[in-house]
Amino acid sequence: MSPTRLNHLLPQTVSELSDNNSLHGLFHEHDDGISLPSGPMLTEIVNLCRSILFPGYYGDADVCRKSLPYHIGVEVERLYDLLCQTLNDEEKAATFVEKLPELRRILATDVEAAYNGDPAADSYSEIICCYPVIKAITNYRIAHELLLLGVPLIPRFITEMAHSETGIDIHPAASIGDHFTIDHGTGVVIGATCIIGNNVKLYQGVTLGAKSFPLDEEGHPIKGIPRHPILEDDVIVYSNSTILGRITIGKGTIVGGNVWLTESTQPGARIMQAKSNK
Amino acid sequence: MSPTRLNHLLPQTVSELSDNNSLHGLFHEHDDGISLPSGPMLTEIVNLCRSILFPGYYGDADVCRKSLPYHIGVEVERLYDLLCQTLNDEEKAATFVEKLPELRRILATDVEAAYNGDPAADSYSEIICCYPVIKAITNYRIAHELLLLGVPLIPRFITEMAHSETGIDIHPAASIGDHFTIDHGTGVVIGATCIIGNNVKLYQGVTLGAKSFPLDEEGHPIKGIPRHPILEDDVIVYSNSTILGRITIGKGTIVGGNVWLTESTQPGARIMQAKSNK
Amino acid sequence: MSPTRLNHLLPQTVSELSDNNSLHGLFHEHDDGISLPSGPMLTEIVNLCRSILFPGYYGDADVCRKSLPYHIGVEVERLYDLLCQTLNDEEKAATFVEKLPELRRILATDVEAAYNGDPAADSYSEIICCYPVIKAITNYRIAHELLLLGVPLIPRFITEMAHSETGIDIHPAASIGDHFTIDHGTGVVIGATCIIGNNVKLYQGVTLGAKSFPLDEEGHPIKGIPRHPILEDDVIVYSNSTILGRITIGKGTIVGGNVWLTESTQPGARIMQAKSNK
Amino acid sequence: MSPTRLNHLLPQTVSELSDNNSLHGLFHEHDDGISLPSGPMLTEIVNLCRSILFPGYYGDADVCRKSLPYHIGVEVERLYDLLCQTLNDEEKAATFVEKLPELRRILATDVEAAYNGDPAADSYSEIICCYPVIKAITNYRIAHELLLLGVPLIPRFITEMAHSETGIDIHPAASIGDHFTIDHGTGVVIGATCIIGNNVKLYQGVTLGAKSFPLDEEGHPIKGIPRHPILEDDVIVYSNSTILGRITIGKGTIVGGNVWLTESTQPGARIMQAKSNK
Amino acid sequence: MSPTRLNHLLPQTVSELSDNNSLHGLFHEHDDGISLPSGPMLTEIVNLCRSILFPGYYGDADVCRKSLPYHIGVEVERLYDLLCQTLNDEEKAATFVEKLPELRRILATDVEAAYNGDPAADSYSEIICCYPVIKAITNYRIAHELLLLGVPLIPRFITEMAHSETGIDIHPAASIGDHFTIDHGTGVVIGATCIIGNNVKLYQGVTLGAKSFPLDEEGHPIKGIPRHPILEDDVIVYSNSTILGRITIGKGTIVGGNVWLTESTQPGARIMQAKSNK
Amino acid sequence: MSPTRLNHLLPQTVSELSDNNSLHGLFHEHDDGISLPSGPMLTEIVNLCRSILFPGYYGDADVCRKSLPYHIGVEVERLYDLLCQTLNDEEKAATFVEKLPELRRILATDVEAAYNGDPAADSYSEIICCYPVIKAITNYRIAHELLLLGVPLIPRFITEMAHSETGIDIHPAASIGDHFTIDHGTGVVIGATCIIGNNVKLYQGVTLGAKSFPLDEEGHPIKGIPRHPILEDDVIVYSNSTILGRITIGKGTIVGGNVWLTESTQPGARIMQAKSNK
Repeated sequence: MSPTRLNHLLPQTVSELSDNNSLHGLFHEHDDGISLPSGPMLTEIVNLCRSILFPGYYGDADVCRKSLPYHIGVEVERLYDLLCQTLNDEEKAATFVEKLPELRRILATDVEAAYNGDPAADSYSEIICCYPVIKAITNYRIAHELLLLGVPLIPRFITEMAHSETGIDIHPAASIGDHFTIDHGTGVVIGATCIIGNNVKLYQGVTLGAKSFPLDEEGHPIKGIPRHPILEDDVIVYSNSTILGRITIGKGTIVGGNVWLTESTQPGARIMQAKSNK
Repeated sequence: MSPTRLNHLLPQTVSELSDNNSLHGLFHEHDDGISLPSGPMLTEIVNLCRSILFPGYYGDADVCRKSLPYHIGVEVERLYDLLCQTLNDEEKAATFVEKLPELRRILATDVEAAYNGDPAADSYSEIICCYPVIKAITNYRIAHELLLLGVPLIPRFITEMAHSETGIDIHPAASIGDHFTIDHGTGVVIGATCIIGNNVKLYQGVTLGAKSFPLDEEGHPIKGIPRHPILEDDVIVYSNSTILGRITIGKGTIVGGNVWLTESTQPGARIMQAKSNK
Repeated sequence: MSPTRLNHLLPQTVSELSDNNSLHGLFHEHDDGISLPSGPMLTEIVNLCRSILFPGYYGDADVCRKSLPYHIGVEVERLYDLLCQTLNDEEKAATFVEKLPELRRILATDVEAAYNGDPAADSYSEIICCYPVIKAITNYRIAHELLLLGVPLIPRFITEMAHSETGIDIHPAASIGDHFTIDHGTGVVIGATCIIGNNVKLYQGVTLGAKSFPLDEEGHPIKGIPRHPILEDDVIVYSNSTILGRITIGKGTIVGGNVWLTESTQPGARIMQAKSNK
Repeated sequence: MSPTRLNHLLPQTVSELSDNNSLHGLFHEHDDGISLPSGPMLTEIVNLCRSILFPGYYGDADVCRKSLPYHIGVEVERLYDLLCQTLNDEEKAATFVEKLPELRRILATDVEAAYNGDPAADSYSEIICCYPVIKAITNYRIAHELLLLGVPLIPRFITEMAHSETGIDIHPAASIGDHFTIDHGTGVVIGATCIIGNNVKLYQGVTLGAKSFPLDEEGHPIKGIPRHPILEDDVIVYSNSTILGRITIGKGTIVGGNVWLTESTQPGARIMQAKSNK
Repeated sequence: MSPTRLNHLLPQTVSELSDNNSLHGLFHEHDDGISLPSGPMLTEIVNLCRSILFPGYYGDADVCRKSLPYHIGVEVERLYDLLCQTLNDEEKAATFVEKLPELRRILATDVEAAYNGDPAADSYSEIICCYPVIKAITNYRIAHELLLLGVPLIPRFITEMAHSETGIDIHPAASIGDHFTIDHGTGVVIGATCIIGNNVKLYQGVTLGAKSFPLDEEGHPIKGIPRHPILEDDVIVYSNSTILGRITIGKGTIVGGNVWLTESTQPGARIMQAKSNK
Repeated sequence: MSPTRLNHLLPQTVSELSDNNSLHGLFHEHDDGISLPSGPMLTEIVNLCRSILFPGYYGDADVCRKSLPYHIGVEVERLYDLLCQTLNDEEKAATFVEKLPELRRILATDVEAAYNGDPAADSYSEIICCYPVIKAITNYRIAHELLLLGVPLIPRFITEMAHSETGIDIHPAASIGDHFTIDHGTGVVIGATCIIGNNVKLYQGVTLGAKSFPLDEEGHPIKGIPRHPILEDDVIVYSNSTILGRITIGKGTIVGGNVWLTESTQPGARIMQAKSNK
């Protein structure tokens, strides 16, 4: 290639790409010393939480009973420091750290639910190490806690990290009870205003979504309106079913696979797909 | 284990695995100094593009207005050098680099569409950082540009990287208009001969696929025949629907969720699933 | 934040998180010198297998014909050493290594099937580098071999690594014949007791699952009962269909997309979805 | 080993090592959010300076004329940010950055002196890449500038990094003129209160040290008293000679090898070692 | 280059280099599962010791009083585990760990000696961070302790690591009292059978070496004979002096710079170099 | 700091530092696609050579007899590829590779000399792992071979790497016979035109240097004139001695420590230092 072209190409392209009009809305300017939370730092935060919550499974695999408090001490301090840097708020960082024992308590119920719900599972070890739902629900519960503390953006980052890792997309604003599990999980979507009771089980490909959403006068969707389903306790939804809108799926309802559901159900209901044609 | 067995195992296994018959079709021999594009190099190319296109969101988070041109200058030069090495063609590398401002212009419309289409989105920042569609459509638009330049194999690598990251599988040969978005995205498939207009929105699990394909005389599929759908402007396809074959989905058509569609639709059509049985 | 609170926070939280009750079932104690297989070590094992099986495509891209045996020699030795450490059983490590030529032979049939089944594929190179099914089926075949050797937990780790990477979830205990392929793949689930014949093709989103499972006297699922489908030779299942229960899909059956199927089919059957409502 | 002993060993040793008496003077407590400058951060600062001062020799080797300003822009910004973090003083960081052109100007005279002084040198490239004096004098000039700005501790870190790398130990408080060079360099020591003129050359093993130092009433050395030699312009000191005390080595003096010198010399003096016995 | 030559070159060179005669004495065969201690593992061991002994100066710079025991706990456990792997002897590993408090106690005297001996030192921080003697004496004291436990080879590795880092070469078998310091240090050599009392100070370039050594009947040096000097308490040796042979340098002796000394001295002696010729 | 100053500082400093006058002689412009050899690549080249020459000591510590040829094969190929890239000359790369067996043969004599010359050495393992002379002489012999092939600059890089690591500075153009060793080594300098016979031993701090060098008409040193000593076979030079000029040290001469020697010696001479004053 002619050097002339090369010498021209670089300044011309750089100039176009640095133009304010070109950048409009797509450039996150580091302003007043604040920049976006870094990906590696959020990854470290999530990994520390996983390691504190499930010691020996995540983080240092060689931890033993006698050294466990030392490990947890170092990890909790590091987590606190990273949260202070990332949230820029020591009070929120401390509050989050104090929630860790409660987070572990509820995650224990999720592990139990996954184990009891799958005949292929041989042990708690297999659940904690190999079931994508554990990664997804852990990230969700961390993110939900941060969202309750008023932290912006970071909760979505954290659930999206699990979405990329597992194919399970849980919005951090959703509310999810204990003993929650998802089998296989790829393709599951749980929307921002979902309310899910205790002891609920989903299978792969289930969507708990919005049916439609009202637009404001300028034609933009109105934010913040409840628009996703409520699942009461003990509901099971089989694979690839779609439940849309602010409806209530009654306690103990079983929704079969491949179902498209936009209306509320009574407690104990059984909802099945139309028959296939042979 | 007896040393005798060990001493035998290694040369025997190596010999079998180095045998030409065993290797047939599965060995990419480095020939004439050309080897496959390396994964780390392609990852760096994609990361550089993301960083140039969305500065501050990808790449160095500390970039500010006054230093932006320096960053873009270094990144564009590095990208150009990597493309020269990878494509082994300076002219194509330069042409690709010149397309970057246009790539950013069209990606800005995709960001806008994602923001306007989701009531859960709080800001452009959230869209660019946390919505998998941005990663998938960016990789697709990069890959499509390279494919138009006649670059083999690499475009597929690049869209497959996004597929692994997001669960969204867009073939680089597809043609996609501006203001394109996908919500959630896991499980979306967009085939190689798809033609998608402007302002189209898909939900998770949507397939735009081939219905069947003619075989040649030896029973192998004939390559290169148009076999995927055309979606005209303003089409919306809800979650988990499947649209197959070289059909035309008319302007403004809305396809509901879980629909199986193999016939063209009129502009403005509304296509819904058969009812479930309760 | 007041130092007093900080000084209190750390020991209090560490103490709660180190409590035996809190840890119950969630702490993997390194016991008798045995810890869980480390993630990085399993990743290296899988990468070595991929590199040995598909030289030049995975691992060192610069390998050439004359140096291939050296590369394979070093990789096989390293693989053997890692397996010895991980399995803690030299005999099993050696037996696995001896299976590598046979693993490559059957994977060659999978590559061939993927190439013949997709008109968009330009070359074997594209299949091996860019088709997620190759990663998923390779991990499955490695994991299945280890499971046959009686190795616990690790096979599930290995298939779950591919699940995260590709969205394809194959249980290592499933049995799968030669010339197997999956197109696109995101959302595919293949259960633990599936038996799949030769020359079978699946599309994205297909579930081969369990319909229900008997509980024992305490209400827990009984482990180990055959509960997933048998697919005979030459079956094709199109996208997003669900086949549940210990049924037999007869030789050459074609199951259309979005089908929900819970009954056996005759050889040569054609199963299609109920029509959508327009 | 008996588990009892192990269980005892850990808490006992940790307790002793955490004891305040044991820690006295040896524990750098992170206090008020200030910790020691991190080694990796100082290494990055020095590498950035080297790369800015000698572009193409240090840092990115592929920089070319047209892209140089972009590289320098990114590096200067990064350097400024790191200095702000490390010095915790934006004004000092800015002042240091403004000194870079002057630092490069004087280092150019050092490179020239090294080239002119060694018949074995083939090119400026060889000097800049391979002569340890360039690394040592660059670190010294950086450190000296920071010391003039009143920065504590960090200047000593930076010269000690060069000491470890080259065996040349220059105190950052020494004053050194232009066209300074050292041949080979291992074992050279230049004390804190040395004053060295222009165009001075040292060989390996030369010490410019203190002869003795007065003690205060408690028997501790009194800090800050001039106690090292003054070398006027154009002095040469050959290998392994030692010059001690606040003496003045007159302009143009040549000190031979292995000399022990504790008295001032006249301009133009020639000082040689006592003869060896054969 | 002709492919023929290349094809020939590789197997021919590999064959010659794998030949047993060529390898004689230069090949460390991994035998019975034992291999040489790995460099990275020894580096980690030394870094852990430095971090435990001087917390906040080495290792994590953010450690604070309240979290110190957690950090030390994790580090001591990790050190113990690495020593078990490296020494293959749990008893020796435990004994070494128990010596850590005593190692810190004596190192504290070395830090104090360095501080009191140098008017250029501003603080203990500067001594611990920037004085090469601290690195060298720490490695020596670690290595000496391991040597006393009968550990082969590793002690030499550890002192040689400090030799490379600082230019100070202390044999691990030497015996060195408390309050020991070396100023600058490059070129110092302390031989294997040296015995050094308390409160001794050396300057750069000092050799405490062997004068000659008896040969056995085959002309090889006889190992293990005392052949290096004894330095009694309070001795100072100035720069570049050489003291050779099994002589005794009496308490309080001061040896000037550049002295060649092969005979014992009385307590309180002052030994100076022959005058230079002017 | 005022943003105004910051906004001014960056472009102003970048502009000054990018100015051609400022850069004169200090900027290595990447020209015609050629850049300087990268440090990491040279480090890898040296590490590969060390690993090939001393298998099991350097490189993979787990290599065993049966797998050795595979390791050497992979390493030799990688070395050849790196040399081709770095030297840009396949013929020279191949010639260097063919010299490796001869390099190992002569290095074996150096190891033997080190072992026989030091009563503190317990084994060949200790020599190869822990004696800095082995690193320095290996790098020298590699660099010398490349220099004989006419490779510019890189030989100096390689010996300077060893200089930094060991304090031993051997010019690659020196000529050194077999059975060469250096004890301790810090501060040794061996000049470019030295000629050293077989079975020569040096101690730390020995300089084999130039006495003076003629200047050309412009006052620059004339390059390439023999100006360093010739040491015939069986010479020993004790620590810190300096031998200068194109003199000949006769066969079997022993030079004591701290000697300054500028005249030739007869075979068998004994040269000692002047006595110290007590």
